[in-house]
Amino acid sequence: MSKPETTAVILAAGKGTRMRSNRPKVLHPVANAPMLAHVLGVAGAAGIGRAAVVVGPDMEQVAEAGKTMSDGLQVFIQQDQRGTADAVLAAKDALQSAAGPVLVLYGDTPLLETDTLSEVQAALTEGADLVVVGFDAPDPTGYGRLLVDDAGTLTGIREEKDASEAEKGITLCNSGIVGFGSGALLLSLLDRIGNDNAKGEYYLTDAVGLAAADGLKLKIVTADHETLLGVNSRAELATAEAVMQKRLRARALAGGVTMTAPETVFLSADTKIAPDVIIEPNVIIGPGVTIGEGAHIKGFCHFEQATIGRGATVGPFARLRPGAELSERAHVGNFVEIKKSTVGVGAKVNHLTYIGDAEIGAEANIGAGTITCNYDGFDKHRTEIGEGAFIGSNSSLVAPVKIGDGAYVGSGSVIVHDVSPGALSLSRSAQEEKADWATRYKARRMKAKQGE
Amino acid sequence: MSKPETTAVILAAGKGTRMRSNRPKVLHPVANAPMLAHVLGVAGAAGIGRAAVVVGPDMEQVAEAGKTMSDGLQVFIQQDQRGTADAVLAAKDALQSAAGPVLVLYGDTPLLETDTLSEVQAALTEGADLVVVGFDAPDPTGYGRLLVDDAGTLTGIREEKDASEAEKGITLCNSGIVGFGSGALLLSLLDRIGNDNAKGEYYLTDAVGLAAADGLKLKIVTADHETLLGVNSRAELATAEAVMQKRLRARALAGGVTMTAPETVFLSADTKIAPDVIIEPNVIIGPGVTIGEGAHIKGFCHFEQATIGRGATVGPFARLRPGAELSERAHVGNFVEIKKSTVGVGAKVNHLTYIGDAEIGAEANIGAGTITCNYDGFDKHRTEIGEGAFIGSNSSLVAPVKIGDGAYVGSGSVIVHDVSPGALSLSRSAQEEKADWATRYKARRMKAKQGE
Amino acid sequence: MSKPETTAVILAAGKGTRMRSNRPKVLHPVANAPMLAHVLGVAGAAGIGRAAVVVGPDMEQVAEAGKTMSDGLQVFIQQDQRGTADAVLAAKDALQSAAGPVLVLYGDTPLLETDTLSEVQAALTEGADLVVVGFDAPDPTGYGRLLVDDAGTLTGIREEKDASEAEKGITLCNSGIVGFGSGALLLSLLDRIGNDNAKGEYYLTDAVGLAAADGLKLKIVTADHETLLGVNSRAELATAEAVMQKRLRARALAGGVTMTAPETVFLSADTKIAPDVIIEPNVIIGPGVTIGEGAHIKGFCHFEQATIGRGATVGPFARLRPGAELSERAHVGNFVEIKKSTVGVGAKVNHLTYIGDAEIGAEANIGAGTITCNYDGFDKHRTEIGEGAFIGSNSSLVAPVKIGDGAYVGSGSVIVHDVSPGALSLSRSAQEEKADWATRYKARRMKAKQGE
Repeated sequence: MSKPETTAVILAAGKGTRMRSNRPKVLHPVANAPMLAHVLGVAGAAGIGRAAVVVGPDMEQVAEAGKTMSDGLQVFIQQDQRGTADAVLAAKDALQSAAGPVLVLYGDTPLLETDTLSEVQAALTEGADLVVVGFDAPDPTGYGRLLVDDAGTLTGIREEKDASEAEKGITLCNSGIVGFGSGALLLSLLDRIGNDNAKGEYYLTDAVGLAAADGLKLKIVTADHETLLGVNSRAELATAEAVMQKRLRARALAGGVTMTAPETVFLSADTKIAPDVIIEPNVIIGPGVTIGEGAHIKGFCHFEQATIGRGATVGPFARLRPGAELSERAHVGNFVEIKKSTVGVGAKVNHLTYIGDAEIGAEANIGAGTITCNYDGFDKHRTEIGEGAFIGSNSSLVAPVKIGDGAYVGSGSVIVHDVSPGALSLSRSAQEEKADWATRYKARRMKAKQGE
Repeated sequence: MSKPETTAVILAAGKGTRMRSNRPKVLHPVANAPMLAHVLGVAGAAGIGRAAVVVGPDMEQVAEAGKTMSDGLQVFIQQDQRGTADAVLAAKDALQSAAGPVLVLYGDTPLLETDTLSEVQAALTEGADLVVVGFDAPDPTGYGRLLVDDAGTLTGIREEKDASEAEKGITLCNSGIVGFGSGALLLSLLDRIGNDNAKGEYYLTDAVGLAAADGLKLKIVTADHETLLGVNSRAELATAEAVMQKRLRARALAGGVTMTAPETVFLSADTKIAPDVIIEPNVIIGPGVTIGEGAHIKGFCHFEQATIGRGATVGPFARLRPGAELSERAHVGNFVEIKKSTVGVGAKVNHLTYIGDAEIGAEANIGAGTITCNYDGFDKHRTEIGEGAFIGSNSSLVAPVKIGDGAYVGSGSVIVHDVSPGALSLSRSAQEEKADWATRYKARRMKAKQGE
Repeated sequence: MSKPETTAVILAAGKGTRMRSNRPKVLHPVANAPMLAHVLGVAGAAGIGRAAVVVGPDMEQVAEAGKTMSDGLQVFIQQDQRGTADAVLAAKDALQSAAGPVLVLYGDTPLLETDTLSEVQAALTEGADLVVVGFDAPDPTGYGRLLVDDAGTLTGIREEKDASEAEKGITLCNSGIVGFGSGALLLSLLDRIGNDNAKGEYYLTDAVGLAAADGLKLKIVTADHETLLGVNSRAELATAEAVMQKRLRARALAGGVTMTAPETVFLSADTKIAPDVIIEPNVIIGPGVTIGEGAHIKGFCHFEQATIGRGATVGPFARLRPGAELSERAHVGNFVEIKKSTVGVGAKVNHLTYIGDAEIGAEANIGAGTITCNYDGFDKHRTEIGEGAFIGSNSSLVAPVKIGDGAYVGSGSVIVHDVSPGALSLSRSAQEEKADWATRYKARRMKAKQGE
């Protein structure tokens, strides 16, 4: 039994002047995903199958980015900024072809919760013609108030400036999110919204009064104020980030992750962490990271698009860049960078090392200061290190190159040819000693210093 | 004049299901010491000389760990989880042999304070037969309430479900910590506790009612709610950690330590810091660390079991691992790892270096990128660097090896033989130059790229 | 039309015993500037052209430091600590030569705001003889209360111990900051202040009562309590730091900087950040740092006296030390330290590298593990790397040395001679291979291990 699909119209044309940025506001990230992606994600999670986004002119960036976030996303352009009703009208085509209800959302509200949209849809399914999302504000100054009659039915929205003293006492406020029973209803209401106000703009909120006057069935769904935060400045962006991080951390803790100081661990919206993982303070987890059960992440780590196997130990001071894949029980230690490489089961890369475009076999040991020389100034080349191989400290492995299983590389070698399995390879000059040289050198330099 | 020794019975058999962990709950750490160790430490500080811990079956880990925390700790196993009274009874042997009072504590309350236990003991010494530790809860819902008569005397404990409306208004609650005048008294009370309740368990709190009915002398000792927090989830573990860190930081500040941002410095329960030490933001201090007067710890450092001498400078981005010992005025700089090594007075190890299993003499200078090659794939070997020696950058010191006092090692050398005092040693190939090679190479590669 | 110059007398003789420090209290830093420098800076910003500081004996350090903070700063010594009036009197010479008003400030109030001092000056200009800065304290216990008559005119200051119950209810308190219409007036009042009190000290606050009794015109200027915080302990120093950091972060956010987690970014009083800069969590910015538009600062960076060009990318785990200058679009990556060096337009220094005393040309590429060997044990020498040069990984550049434009250096080379433009230079031993050596070695070692 399939219900007619809901359509979300997401307004994203605001210039966000207070952000003082060249980047369109809704593309500013929260937990490493653009705000618009959060809104689209929440809509999707609430079972809304169809989405349209309304952007301003010169916002191709948003159009392009939006399409990567949601399949089949329709993008409409609002030519002039003439109010929210005008913005919704820019998506006329999407409204005309909408088979089911339509929800008007905002691209700058990344903290929106799925439950809220589910409740709006449920209310519409149960017969409401129009549903407004409201919130209770301890200090409602500046917000539009939701007017209800004695039966608790929504009768209209009163803007601050038009409110009587009694109405100013109302704390139930308008979030701007509205659901309509159908696209046709929304279009018919939009058609009747005028711009007879101080700014000469067309306000979507006027639809509520019109619908009430028509005797339509109106309903309110309430949500926590925090979940409706609209981001208009860098400070509000930081606030949204802080709230989102709290949510992500709470979810990880509930899932059995130990974090010594959760407030110092930064997660991404898509981070996956298994139970009994330990995360020490000061860890930054960028997008696309998965951490397996029982892994131990020490302090000061920085990960992006990386996979960490069960029981692996990482850090402190480790950086895993895109394509780093650590197998079970792998060890990656301090001042180590790994990029587009796999580290085999139980292999160790413990100190001051750069591993790029490499494959390291199980139980291999990579000495301190090892560098894979993967770049020749034009292309990147691969390094293969066999199982159980031992790379002496401070070695340079000039790719493309292959170190056989169980081979040894002597400390400080520059390896340019493949090394056979089980062999020892090294490039090393003989150690020379010049007796007393240092003593004489120092005496000479000291004397010169004194003469200065 | 010696008083009869007090015995602490510490309950630690809870499975801690909500932790979602394979590790026994009381072994989860707070400030780098297991919760159980905190409770044992507080008991010890309060002069309690004898301790027994009650664990569940399959908790050998707790038994073993407990013995390393407290000499002579007795461990008892509670076979089935049949309530707190049953748990205490598991320690029957310890109760029978107790010469003095007995306190029942909990292994998951790491924030417990010494003063609270001292007050309980004082009350018992002054004649009370039974002492309950209570706390004042702003919202007492869910806690057992302490009932007192008009004279303020404790008459019993009322569980939430059995409380009248009036009793529900009582905010003085039961922490579960109880002191008994003697082991014999506790045993006689335990003997009479039944399990006629919903869960069919034996509750220690019933001892209070029995004692009151017997006309024994009961007393209440109150403590701050926060100090009695029982940890049952990862979120509560993080809360306990946060409270403990605040305590440790406050103690350090009061002791004359400057911390630019105390909330970003993580200390261990056993950290020792002298006055006039400066600690920049983002420093993680693991167990077993001592920092001498006037030392300057820059940001992003990570220490474990290390000693830092007076006036030393460390970091930013330095890692001191177990056995790192920095002498007075030593300098350890960025991206440097030191393990099981001593760094002499005024010696410098400033950049991108790994020092393991080494001894560095006074005023020696270790160049950037130096690596002690201490591991041969089987064993660790030692490196000795003499006083005033100068190790050129990017050198590899292949241990076992000894660099004499005042010797120089040329940059980029691989040193496999000992170097005499005052000598210069180097291993270096002649520098060759292929004129125009790079120009031709680039031209060829560029052309190829264009052809692609 | 020039007004007679205002003089600020800044009291800085307090020993700050509770700091438990050998450093004079007013030299303890907040946001990387001594507290005294903040007070001097605020005075300067409020248009106060003339400043005198009163220090205790044995505080030459303050005298010296003060002179570097403010040109022409006069320093006076208060021989014995006999109260604030006595301290002001130590600056008698400055008062006698004052052509305009005199403000008495405190060297340990780093959060003081310019507006407050501007208001005090305005009140004096508008005819007040004496202006007291007051603040409203939710809990005034311990502070002197400002007494006002029905007309709201200041009539005196009542110390806690002398206050009636009614007076104890007053929440308007004395900050200790006082402005006087002229130096002569202040001197005449000081002359009449006695020491008939418990401590036998001379209190500047007594000047208020004397002036009121004389019928002079008194006025109150109020300021937020937080801005008047006097620092007397390490904990208060940390509080002042936290407040100052909040201010600096808010200013940066308002200026168009994105900070994922502002509370983890530490700024200095003199930090300059252009719009659209992104700063990830955990960045420490020391004194003297400028960051150009659109630069991206990744997590875990540590900067001091460094310049970062427009569109540059830095970190994570990068350390820029004094004299690091990154040009437009330069890339500095992880575990990289740069000191007294310029990095050209678009040049890359991405991994595990130490660059000291160097000049790197535009679009040059510095391989992982490169070390400039700038120190010979006595002096520092310079390295020059030409435009478009490519330094192979793990190379050591022994300064003084010059790598020509477009030259290549082979991986693992030790470069001691200049390299011609467009040439390839390398120092490398031939790679040798000992077949099966590792296999035999391991077998032998394993056998020995088993025999142990």
